[in-house]
Amino acid sequence: MTEPMKWWGWGDPEKRLELGEDARATLEAELGAAEPSARVELEEVTMPEARALPDAVTRAAAEALLTGHEDRVRRATGKSYPDLFRTRSGRLDAAPDAVVTPRSAAQVLAVVEASAASGVAVVPFGGGTSVVGGVDPIRGPHDAAIALDLQSLRHCEVDHTSLTARLGPGLRGPEAEAALLAEGLTLGHYPQSFEYATVGGFAATRSAGQASAGYGRFDELVTAIELMSPAGRLATLETAHTAAGPALRELIVGSEGTLGVITDVTVRVRRAPAVTRYEGWIAADFESGAEAVRALAQSGRLPDVTRLSDEEETRVSLALSSTAGLKRSLLDSYLRLRRRTGGCMMIVGWEGEAEDVERRRALSSRTLRSAGVVRLGGAPGRAWSHGRFDGPYLRDELLDLGYFVETMETSHTWSRYQDLYGAVGDALRDALQGQGTPGLVWCHLSHAYRDGASLYFTFVAPRRAGAEIEQWGAVKTAACQAIVATGGTITHHHAVGRDHAPYMPAEVGDVGVEALRALKERLDPAGIMNPGKLLPDA
Amino acid sequence: MTEPMKWWGWGDPEKRLELGEDARATLEAELGAAEPSARVELEEVTMPEARALPDAVTRAAAEALLTGHEDRVRRATGKSYPDLFRTRSGRLDAAPDAVVTPRSAAQVLAVVEASAASGVAVVPFGGGTSVVGGVDPIRGPHDAAIALDLQSLRHCEVDHTSLTARLGPGLRGPEAEAALLAEGLTLGHYPQSFEYATVGGFAATRSAGQASAGYGRFDELVTAIELMSPAGRLATLETAHTAAGPALRELIVGSEGTLGVITDVTVRVRRAPAVTRYEGWIAADFESGAEAVRALAQSGRLPDVTRLSDEEETRVSLALSSTAGLKRSLLDSYLRLRRRTGGCMMIVGWEGEAEDVERRRALSSRTLRSAGVVRLGGAPGRAWSHGRFDGPYLRDELLDLGYFVETMETSHTWSRYQDLYGAVGDALRDALQGQGTPGLVWCHLSHAYRDGASLYFTFVAPRRAGAEIEQWGAVKTAACQAIVATGGTITHHHAVGRDHAPYMPAEVGDVGVEALRALKERLDPAGIMNPGKLLPDA
Repeated sequence: MTEPMKWWGWGDPEKRLELGEDARATLEAELGAAEPSARVELEEVTMPEARALPDAVTRAAAEALLTGHEDRVRRATGKSYPDLFRTRSGRLDAAPDAVVTPRSAAQVLAVVEASAASGVAVVPFGGGTSVVGGVDPIRGPHDAAIALDLQSLRHCEVDHTSLTARLGPGLRGPEAEAALLAEGLTLGHYPQSFEYATVGGFAATRSAGQASAGYGRFDELVTAIELMSPAGRLATLETAHTAAGPALRELIVGSEGTLGVITDVTVRVRRAPAVTRYEGWIAADFESGAEAVRALAQSGRLPDVTRLSDEEETRVSLALSSTAGLKRSLLDSYLRLRRRTGGCMMIVGWEGEAEDVERRRALSSRTLRSAGVVRLGGAPGRAWSHGRFDGPYLRDELLDLGYFVETMETSHTWSRYQDLYGAVGDALRDALQGQGTPGLVWCHLSHAYRDGASLYFTFVAPRRAGAEIEQWGAVKTAACQAIVATGGTITHHHAVGRDHAPYMPAEVGDVGVEALRALKERLDPAGIMNPGKLLPDA
Repeated sequence: MTEPMKWWGWGDPEKRLELGEDARATLEAELGAAEPSARVELEEVTMPEARALPDAVTRAAAEALLTGHEDRVRRATGKSYPDLFRTRSGRLDAAPDAVVTPRSAAQVLAVVEASAASGVAVVPFGGGTSVVGGVDPIRGPHDAAIALDLQSLRHCEVDHTSLTARLGPGLRGPEAEAALLAEGLTLGHYPQSFEYATVGGFAATRSAGQASAGYGRFDELVTAIELMSPAGRLATLETAHTAAGPALRELIVGSEGTLGVITDVTVRVRRAPAVTRYEGWIAADFESGAEAVRALAQSGRLPDVTRLSDEEETRVSLALSSTAGLKRSLLDSYLRLRRRTGGCMMIVGWEGEAEDVERRRALSSRTLRSAGVVRLGGAPGRAWSHGRFDGPYLRDELLDLGYFVETMETSHTWSRYQDLYGAVGDALRDALQGQGTPGLVWCHLSHAYRDGASLYFTFVAPRRAGAEIEQWGAVKTAACQAIVATGGTITHHHAVGRDHAPYMPAEVGDVGVEALRALKERLDPAGIMNPGKLLPDA
């Protein structure tokens, strides 16, 4: 098992992405000074005292019960800005009363059933990487809440003929990849949270990886799934495809722990690629770049990785990269070609057999050139690949410096894509301004389809010291409202959790919410599964 | 609107696929003589007298109410063998008490609400092509049953930028294609029922077209859907993709009219192909042919159409084709290459821009040759394309001759594929033998995936005159039990309807059935929507 991440932030405790003097000066020049934010020590973290668990739950948990200070702190939050801020400050409003790490799917069911019978809320916990409050330890009406950590369920059984694998929900991204690579295979699922997020979490939240165009989103990879609900075990059939009614698999995928605990996920896998090739290209502006991506998607020539930064993301990331360990050649190539003012960086990548990669690359390249996009070469692609999981490390540095930094994502059809891009960007800028903290807002497209694409916004501003959560709430709300008003989805791949639950009626309508409630009430009559997530308060 | 089909059988009343003397002699030699089956005239068909509808329903239906003899006969059954047998015999056990053809989605909702309030069962009716009892007019506990025919809802609104189209549920396959072709587009969805099945039916049953590898199964084409349920309107968001919880779209797709009436379907469309190219190839046997298809699917080189007949289907279809209007060249090419004994016909096809088709064809061909499959040329492909919707016409001829003929389909992963093929084939042959009517059983693979493929069985035997329904029931049950015992799905693309409902607990488990019941009870508390379908009796 990989080492636990920083208790107070993201990732490998040994790794830092320190911003150099130039980058810090740039940020200060553009955003004004921020008040550096201190971090407490682990022992100093305060949280509500643990409530005692009913005997039935303690018995079912047996030796899988953890009750230490660090055990509870580590399962008290995910990794959204408010999560990080509260953790670093050492003031946790809530924490699980205990942590249970079941050794088998049967023990998961026993713990869930005991919890349902004795009124204990169960919060399934994988990598703890949620950025939408998905693992908030909310007791709801219950007497206690446990974090049910799937870390011990890490099996990997490969069917080489069918190219599928049964994976344990507790496998982290790199663990799943390592187990598959040992068999010459890959899942090809690389969300930014890859290093710590788990297979169960990928399924529960409809994760999308950076190479989703090539390998499929996680929901497209799942062929069968097992859920331990308070009403019992629900497992879908492992078959190539079925027309036997509504797709229950698609109900469990995305259920975010509110219906039960995912204990087994069968996924399609592929032979590990012989070659991976990533390149940088540059588009004149975000609109023409997005049109180029649309042309790729609609002609079936989409690379496996396709990312398009807007002007602001291109500018900021280059400004920060020169001092953040990324290759200088990225900036150089860019500047050479920058006779056009501004421009939007595009990263495209292909993976597979050498011959397939070259053929597909030639086809994609032709489409890109026809759309006026200019090739920068392999250096920016390699730089992107090298730093593809670094975003959250950089966020920790920005938090140290005292900045408010958060991300949001959505998607829409191509015909409404630029409207949504404009509306959300404006809402973020206006809301930051309204907080008295004008900020930087940038965006990229990272998942494209024949009918549309995702939008992923990052924003940075000085924090309002003493009013950080209020500041976050106001900006988040403004952006969510803009998404809803423009008809976009409240989440393309971060899921709903606690933070997006109020927008579910806008997303699926009142009848849709009722349908989800009906399911929840039948599978979890006592309402113990992950209270406060996914569904809006009744 | 296309003309209505034969009231007593399949398809265009002007079209016959008469079997010639040779073919009839072959059948008689192999199966023994059958007792030709007479057909009654439309006026002679008997069915239960229509019950009166409550005023509320009559008012909501207004001018969309039809109560004529033919109106009722035409919505009394689908097109399974027992359906056809009962209709031809003129003895219908059940018929809708009236037919309503709402003029708008709002009127659909009004009729559904009035029916729910006054205890009238509502059976949504599209093309009436179900082969699983999906439109059986079952009243259930209610006083009356209406067929709600969507024939008036036939809009087509194209979004050229996003390459999507909003389609009315009442559009038949050719109508949808014609409307799209007028805009230079195609849906590319060609199930064998294409000529008469409707868009609403495609969605309600998770239809799969002959080119599903290229264009996607129908469930993969749907981006948004609207359902009028007794609890109100449920519409999913039209966006490129969403991670906002369980996929309600995937609940409505496949709901088979049991949750409400589908009134709008937004689908991905493509530019109409410039070129279509179909070819025949021949594999040594079904196992090596299936391995070749697996190699195509797992390397990403699957043609848009890929069909592999087993030895028996190859033999029988060639024996019948020489006199059934198919090109003689099919047989000639085959015989020239038949130095290997037996063999399995494979039809492969590519559609799209000429350059893409040629490139993809070269790649597929290389994989096929590596797998030992031999190219026959374009003639068998053209012959297949010419007769691709002819199966049901041939069935009518076989019924006229007095044969029992039916189809069944399933799917499994590649690692269990040959097991399932063997088990179902054996079950069918044994059951036919057990009925005292040994028959011919043949099979093809027509939908392939990276992880597995479908199996489509056809069987023909002399009918047991006077015990046709019993004969069908015994054979169908034996095959279904074999599917369940081998872990295959009870349906890859025919849906559940009434005939497969008893196998749903095996398919999704008791907890899965409970989840579906919970949904049904919330959206349709009075249980008026398509009673007796999808869910097993409580």
